[in-house]
Amino acid sequence: MLSRTLGTARTAYRHAAMPRQQANVAARWYTAGKLRIDADRMMKTLHETCEWGFAHRYGSSPFETGMARLTLDENDATARRWLADEAKKIGCSVTVDEMGNMFMVKQGKKGGAPTAMGSHLDTQPTGGRYDGILGVMAGLEALRTIKDHNVETEYPVALINWTNEEGARFPQSIVGSGVWCGDVPLQKAWNLQDVKDGSLTMKSELSKIGFLGDTKCSHKATPLAAHFELHIEQGPILEASGKKVGIVQGGQAYKWFDINVRGRECHTGSTPFDTRSDAMLCASRIIVESNRIAKEQSGLASTGILRLSPGSVNTCPGHVFFTLDVRHPSTDKLAALCKDIEAAAHRIASSESEKGCDVDWVETFNSPAITFHPDCISSVRKAVEANYGADHGVDIYSGAGHDTCSTSKVCPSSMIFITSKDGISHNPREYSSPEDCAIGAQVLMDAALLYDAQRSK
Amino acid sequence: MLSRTLGTARTAYRHAAMPRQQANVAARWYTAGKLRIDADRMMKTLHETCEWGFAHRYGSSPFETGMARLTLDENDATARRWLADEAKKIGCSVTVDEMGNMFMVKQGKKGGAPTAMGSHLDTQPTGGRYDGILGVMAGLEALRTIKDHNVETEYPVALINWTNEEGARFPQSIVGSGVWCGDVPLQKAWNLQDVKDGSLTMKSELSKIGFLGDTKCSHKATPLAAHFELHIEQGPILEASGKKVGIVQGGQAYKWFDINVRGRECHTGSTPFDTRSDAMLCASRIIVESNRIAKEQSGLASTGILRLSPGSVNTCPGHVFFTLDVRHPSTDKLAALCKDIEAAAHRIASSESEKGCDVDWVETFNSPAITFHPDCISSVRKAVEANYGADHGVDIYSGAGHDTCSTSKVCPSSMIFITSKDGISHNPREYSSPEDCAIGAQVLMDAALLYDAQRSK
Repeated sequence: MLSRTLGTARTAYRHAAMPRQQANVAARWYTAGKLRIDADRMMKTLHETCEWGFAHRYGSSPFETGMARLTLDENDATARRWLADEAKKIGCSVTVDEMGNMFMVKQGKKGGAPTAMGSHLDTQPTGGRYDGILGVMAGLEALRTIKDHNVETEYPVALINWTNEEGARFPQSIVGSGVWCGDVPLQKAWNLQDVKDGSLTMKSELSKIGFLGDTKCSHKATPLAAHFELHIEQGPILEASGKKVGIVQGGQAYKWFDINVRGRECHTGSTPFDTRSDAMLCASRIIVESNRIAKEQSGLASTGILRLSPGSVNTCPGHVFFTLDVRHPSTDKLAALCKDIEAAAHRIASSESEKGCDVDWVETFNSPAITFHPDCISSVRKAVEANYGADHGVDIYSGAGHDTCSTSKVCPSSMIFITSKDGISHNPREYSSPEDCAIGAQVLMDAALLYDAQRSK
Repeated sequence: MLSRTLGTARTAYRHAAMPRQQANVAARWYTAGKLRIDADRMMKTLHETCEWGFAHRYGSSPFETGMARLTLDENDATARRWLADEAKKIGCSVTVDEMGNMFMVKQGKKGGAPTAMGSHLDTQPTGGRYDGILGVMAGLEALRTIKDHNVETEYPVALINWTNEEGARFPQSIVGSGVWCGDVPLQKAWNLQDVKDGSLTMKSELSKIGFLGDTKCSHKATPLAAHFELHIEQGPILEASGKKVGIVQGGQAYKWFDINVRGRECHTGSTPFDTRSDAMLCASRIIVESNRIAKEQSGLASTGILRLSPGSVNTCPGHVFFTLDVRHPSTDKLAALCKDIEAAAHRIASSESEKGCDVDWVETFNSPAITFHPDCISSVRKAVEANYGADHGVDIYSGAGHDTCSTSKVCPSSMIFITSKDGISHNPREYSSPEDCAIGAQVLMDAALLYDAQRSK
């Protein structure tokens, strides 16, 4: 009684079954592929839970919508309550910390910190159905599979839903795991304001939906033995390479900046160019130049938010606020790139903007380049090789920040990427095929169980 | 009992009194300077009425604030009611038309259409105390002076307050006079939506404050014999020239455009530049290029409004909306300039923006270059020469649109400019000295009365 979706997904497994036999996996309780996730159940669950927050329909089939499930909104709250219930059904304890991070732990033969699989349920305002959501659903599917087979792991295993990975509603990304690993002060995270209504804070909204937990938000209060995360690539590299699984080695460095350009309002009709201090023209020049410099230095620079005032067709703006997101694989080269862009901005504002503008430049976020843990990377690699063969995996670096960038600071961590169609992400049309999702989920479970099997404490 | 302000203003008159004697003014009932406006009363009235909507304090003295009196808001309503009362006190009839335009008419010896002095009481959200307001206050002062001296004009004279000149709250400028002269359909103007709350329209707000009049909004229902307007220059030319009065010959041509750039949302970290369709980067390039082209062709191009979506630090915007305001002294050269900028925008979007964006380009407003009426210009010139001497006036073109651009299409019209300090306008720090305001008001009254005196019907 296989549905079409399940049939297709299962086919992928059958194709991949052969090389597993020859794989050299550790002779412990678990060998990769011993348990098989139920791809159909996972995809069904994923799409069912996307009913909470679906938006931006782009096609006629039921799943052809994006998502707008903003952190701690009503849809996020519903998805969270559902997830806690599902975890309890399969015998997990559920702990919610002060940041609303949810730790769903299934006990093993021995005690100790769990080997975790985690990601996030929140999305961008014009997000898709896979970013974060797939990682949580795959982790849930792994726990369900373990439960179905009455398998007892050596140590506890866990599923984690991290709060506000996106930073879309409360403007700081990776903040639940950031507080947990010690990067972000709790009070600062609690005080983050809803971008549309400054009267709502993360703390007030956690409380409102019943997810302001008692447990301290800290890796000391809820320690993990390891953290694995399945995620869509959100880029075009895997698709172009023809490989199925990205074995993620680490993440590129990135910094965020808030930039305020202050000029002088003036009438658009009666003010000659040479007497203007046009903040919008100045900001435009800085954006164009930041792109040119980043391209030249093999980095990235992007502006995602821009607001101006006063906002009238025939008044040159006196004030423009915008953000800049700058990235580079190397921490040192990122620092140099940011310095060059900042210098260019000041040059543009002072000497290339007619009567001149002032530029105020504040770094709001800094994530150095990250190297994932060799033991975790090795577990992922073994899971790929055993299930699908070595030539189906490719070493890759993450262009985006993820909760695993936080966990990697305090416990062994790594990630698994699967293909994003056309590299599209943070967009309703974000798409990964059911086959690719299934491959990712199988690798996630196997990596976690292989890690569990080789743990000595 | 002269106040310091009045004393200074009067000094300016005394200095200017001599050349008046030699001036060759028409031997009719009125000679320029025969009546004198009360500068102190006018400035007192101006600042008192600025209590309704003052904002953006920049200094400690009582008048060191700007204004935020948006069309039809509560402050505008209060100012309108006050103005109607003041006009009635000096014997004017008050007619309000369907657009809320206020016609305050003082009868003359004969009947017929009045010679009008008009401007507007509404301001930009970060506006000053002189743009529009001075023109209305000077017109009121002229009527008060005529009343004080029990003078009877040949034909009626009028003061007009035109509705929504600024186009800041309801985004189309010069709309009250635009409907009156037949440029703008009434229904279109009524349907204009508050930029912050689409549920409020010009019609609903006119009705709410009691200024949705019964009289048809048309130059046929409320005809004028002529229209004069005193306005601050809103630019740096007069100040640089050292002249006191701009004898305005006409207005430069301008067009407004709504531009929508559509790309594709993508993740800022994992999307290489060459696979992006970044709408914000594309819009920035268009803004920078529009400035370059306008400069090259001796025109102006400015962006006063820009909105993007979705608006998240780590998502490249998929959509940017912005406005473009393009101006040139020649109607034909403006058309060519706009064509060149539009072509550049399409070129940037299609071939210079990585994977490309779409550009949707809509003209929302078109004001051809305007030549004012020689009889009105002549009345202004005579008023300047008689009061202050020929070398205190300078022929000038208006960079901004004004209600007089509308009236000039259906009746003889012209304008008078006085100095704007540092050319600043549409800014709280907009300033014209009491002396300059007084000079402007005297020229306004004299021009209107000279015009009345030479009318044959």
